[in-house]
Amino acid sequence: MEETDLYRAKTGEEIVNEQTYSFTDRGGRDVTLRPEMTPTVARMVAGKRKELSFPVRWYSIPNCFRYERPQRGRLREFWQLNVDMLGAQSAYADAEIIDVAYRIMVRFGADPQNFQIKVNTRTLMTEFFTDTLGLDETGSYKLSKLIDKKNKLKPEEFTDNAKNIIGNKVSVLEKFLNASRLDDVTEIMQNSKGIAELKQVLSALDGCGIQNYVFDPSLMRGFDYYTGMIFEVFDTNPVNARSLFGGGRYDNLVDLFGVESVPAVGFGMGDLTMQDYLETYNLTPELSTGITLGIATVESSVVSGAINLASTLRDQGISCVVDYTETKLGKKLKSLVEQGAAYILTIGPDEFASDQFVIRQSVTSTEQSLSESELGPYLAKLSQS
Amino acid sequence: MEETDLYRAKTGEEIVNEQTYSFTDRGGRDVTLRPEMTPTVARMVAGKRKELSFPVRWYSIPNCFRYERPQRGRLREFWQLNVDMLGAQSAYADAEIIDVAYRIMVRFGADPQNFQIKVNTRTLMTEFFTDTLGLDETGSYKLSKLIDKKNKLKPEEFTDNAKNIIGNKVSVLEKFLNASRLDDVTEIMQNSKGIAELKQVLSALDGCGIQNYVFDPSLMRGFDYYTGMIFEVFDTNPVNARSLFGGGRYDNLVDLFGVESVPAVGFGMGDLTMQDYLETYNLTPELSTGITLGIATVESSVVSGAINLASTLRDQGISCVVDYTETKLGKKLKSLVEQGAAYILTIGPDEFASDQFVIRQSVTSTEQSLSESELGPYLAKLSQS
Repeated sequence: MEETDLYRAKTGEEIVNEQTYSFTDRGGRDVTLRPEMTPTVARMVAGKRKELSFPVRWYSIPNCFRYERPQRGRLREFWQLNVDMLGAQSAYADAEIIDVAYRIMVRFGADPQNFQIKVNTRTLMTEFFTDTLGLDETGSYKLSKLIDKKNKLKPEEFTDNAKNIIGNKVSVLEKFLNASRLDDVTEIMQNSKGIAELKQVLSALDGCGIQNYVFDPSLMRGFDYYTGMIFEVFDTNPVNARSLFGGGRYDNLVDLFGVESVPAVGFGMGDLTMQDYLETYNLTPELSTGITLGIATVESSVVSGAINLASTLRDQGISCVVDYTETKLGKKLKSLVEQGAAYILTIGPDEFASDQFVIRQSVTSTEQSLSESELGPYLAKLSQS
Repeated sequence: MEETDLYRAKTGEEIVNEQTYSFTDRGGRDVTLRPEMTPTVARMVAGKRKELSFPVRWYSIPNCFRYERPQRGRLREFWQLNVDMLGAQSAYADAEIIDVAYRIMVRFGADPQNFQIKVNTRTLMTEFFTDTLGLDETGSYKLSKLIDKKNKLKPEEFTDNAKNIIGNKVSVLEKFLNASRLDDVTEIMQNSKGIAELKQVLSALDGCGIQNYVFDPSLMRGFDYYTGMIFEVFDTNPVNARSLFGGGRYDNLVDLFGVESVPAVGFGMGDLTMQDYLETYNLTPELSTGITLGIATVESSVVSGAINLASTLRDQGISCVVDYTETKLGKKLKSLVEQGAAYILTIGPDEFASDQFVIRQSVTSTEQSLSESELGPYLAKLSQS
């Protein structure tokens, strides 16, 4: 939760006016459930800047809230991995942030041929809007929002809307947006700071061994606080048409809190689009419940003994679960397997009397008869292998 | 976020009327940021009951919100470990939940002599209110809330308030509340179901080897949904006077969702009171930033090479951070150590030219000169030892 004002300044009109969960709290404060994490990171770093050792590399996995139509890749509450670096104004820092994003994809098992990193810079866009198109701040803002929505509009719609802002310069705009190489843009704009900046970032990406990036001058990103490099990661499979996640440089956001400037760059990776990607490529990590041994009691007289045994095994680092309910044995065994028990131990009075406990492997049904004291070492050995 | 109605039914008047963050969303719904997790768990289990395999053992660590005066052990946003078991109505289940709480304390390093588990049951309280004191539902509710606040009131205040509810039966109440053994209560109440129930739970705790519990008939717990066993964990050091955390049985909460009854028991452990406890006994776990190697570049010509080296080392499982900023070298080295680098590598053109890299241990300043290809194996060996 943050003061609503935090988002009014730099997050972007659409989110603040249409998508926030905002309300007045019992103390009369206007507050908003964070729709994204970056302004919060900037606020926290501004508050702790005297104690921090820069550059700060920081990550968090907060939940965020946006009142949007729930759909594929979008829910009203989502979780987002945020990775940020504050205190370094360098193309290497830009590239390091993209490299972290790239490595996370690869570590999830993604083949670099199956995703693409689109890169651009706000510096170039500002130069183009101001110097080439001669737009003022309002015109630039309008055009930037139009470009950000380009993929959701029909080509004619986009052209009509663009004409309203820049008149007959639409052809220059279209030539610019269709550029696929930095050299294409150089034909339109000489001595561009943005191009120089991008060349450094892309060359640093080459140095990291990243090959699946492209320059995309139509990449805008929604947030108003970006000041330099921006990037988005896309699935190459058209089933996930929208960007998976993205980020960029925001050198003026920490200033909002009235402190000295802290240059910053980062990205936010949402759980839902990533889940769609991982499912598309069958890369979803398998999470185990971690239950090694399921213990089923056959009657109430042995429950205490079974619980004691479980305690002893847990002290030896073996995770186990006891089903001491009065359910029928067959149902208990089924339930323990469904809960993830890799091994099953059925306990009745005979087991304790004879000190013979039969451990059954759930999948193969192979059995092993052991004394009580042998159970722990046997299971410990199994969980290591 | 939940519909506000979820809490109106069973959470308790004080929280719902005075402490929730409630508002109307953009779709006109009355919603509340969860002040606690249990009703959410009940809602989710009710929704998935056809797919779940009972008994369900479930944990989560959500953030919760309460508009309270911020103070020691209380902030308006806090995180809470919730551990619940649904589908088992058994004293063993009650004991298992307490055992999990006990084991978490011990695993944090707490000496069982330094915390105490107070146990009671709502069954006993209801019998006492109804059968012994002859109270109706309203009177019982009022008295339960008064007992819950007993420790915050002066003795005379408590007695005066109690007299307003139960008149001259105050002496019976005080005898009851001062009972320190179940036998003391048996003198007041014969054939109590609550006592029989508690004996089973306490006997199961004995079976788990737990010794630091006490019966406390003045333990009430705030939430209205409890139906059976309730418990709270206290620091024995009076610096943390308030309960650290607690829980209990809530057999009628899942019913609220119009489905068949699912008996349940669980607890919620808040981050702030636990932090106070761990700090009191110097048990706070040390969290490392995990930076093994800090690389400082002496000039910009070697930055690419340093980043490449870091990439290679990361591929070998070694975590490292490169300071490629234009800061002075001395400041970089200091900053890397502050960020947790256990080893430092300073890189200039000579290092690459001679293929000699000097790794310095941050604390001892002992140095080791290695070739580029030896760095990975050397550091991998160090991080294993």
